[in-house]
Amino acid sequence: MSRWEPNAKGRLERAALELYANGGFEQTTVAEIAKRAGLTERTFFRYFGDKREVLFAGADRLQTLLVDEVIGAPSSATPIGAVAAALEVAAGLLQENREFAQRRRNAISTNNELQERELIKLAILALAMAAALRTRGVLEPTASLSAEAGIAIFKVAFERWTDESNEQDFPSLIRDSLDELRTLKADQ
Amino acid sequence: MSRWEPNAKGRLERAALELYANGGFEQTTVAEIAKRAGLTERTFFRYFGDKREVLFAGADRLQTLLVDEVIGAPSSATPIGAVAAALEVAAGLLQENREFAQRRRNAISTNNELQERELIKLAILALAMAAALRTRGVLEPTASLSAEAGIAIFKVAFERWTDESNEQDFPSLIRDSLDELRTLKADQ
Repeated sequence: MSRWEPNAKGRLERAALELYANGGFEQTTVAEIAKRAGLTERTFFRYFGDKREVLFAGADRLQTLLVDEVIGAPSSATPIGAVAAALEVAAGLLQENREFAQRRRNAISTNNELQERELIKLAILALAMAAALRTRGVLEPTASLSAEAGIAIFKVAFERWTDESNEQDFPSLIRDSLDELRTLKADQ
Repeated sequence: MSRWEPNAKGRLERAALELYANGGFEQTTVAEIAKRAGLTERTFFRYFGDKREVLFAGADRLQTLLVDEVIGAPSSATPIGAVAAALEVAAGLLQENREFAQRRRNAISTNNELQERELIKLAILALAMAAALRTRGVLEPTASLSAEAGIAIFKVAFERWTDESNEQDFPSLIRDSLDELRTLKADQ
């Protein structure tokens, strides 16, 4: 048996998400995931600590990307402008695999522990973007408020994007949500 | 022994928060909480399922209050206006016990499980306010975005309010955060 399998990680992710969609997250075993991907359990554990981790393996990459984009935004960018630009870049990458995102969302929605982990992930992303804004010289509370508002935008745009009936792409939904947020008026 | 103790719940809450502040949440036992409050463990369990619940006993009341205020806002109120008004009412009630809020925040910050539960509480509040907005005829994604933006405002204002150096009251910090959010410009 070869020690290296081409795109093993991607095959395991796809197999896991298909099984979670068909049989449910709780019922699916690592053995089943490995088998469906044509790989061994040992290979699975080379990439993921457990079957939950398959759903959150992208979180670190997403955080690094968002932080890099916020820090690297033009110096003329406003705080929420830097956050929104970072979210659009991330949305552009996620856009490439909408079906995966939908399956992932469905799997998470069936399990309380996964929902909790997803909320924690988003809260950590907000903290990381606020810290990135502070390195740009943005003061508090503007940094935290811009980052938290960015996560609010991301959550709402993500829900819309993964909706079955949606035909709009993810980056443009991020822009729509930002525009909508900016036009929310506190009084008539 | 009398079956009814005056303000038993409040005494237990105060005793628990003092102990969490001094000895740490994890080290504190229900027996210690009851003893400090001058009550029995049996009385403790009449009000709380466990020592964690002392920190989240107010969550249902807060949710009911926010939903009632959103639904009861004047028909002329905009979505974010109704949310902000509800948050201000809640902040006015919380304002009465800042020290309790600070101790609660400190206890939660030391424990991952408590932090997770706090995030879940906030996510549920956002869903509840979005649903309340929809009963007012507010469409999606405006309802969800207004509710999520409200929670972003609440989180940031709460952090500022419970900061040791802060002297501003909670409702006015909510108004400040709302004003700040409205002036965030996406481009220079």
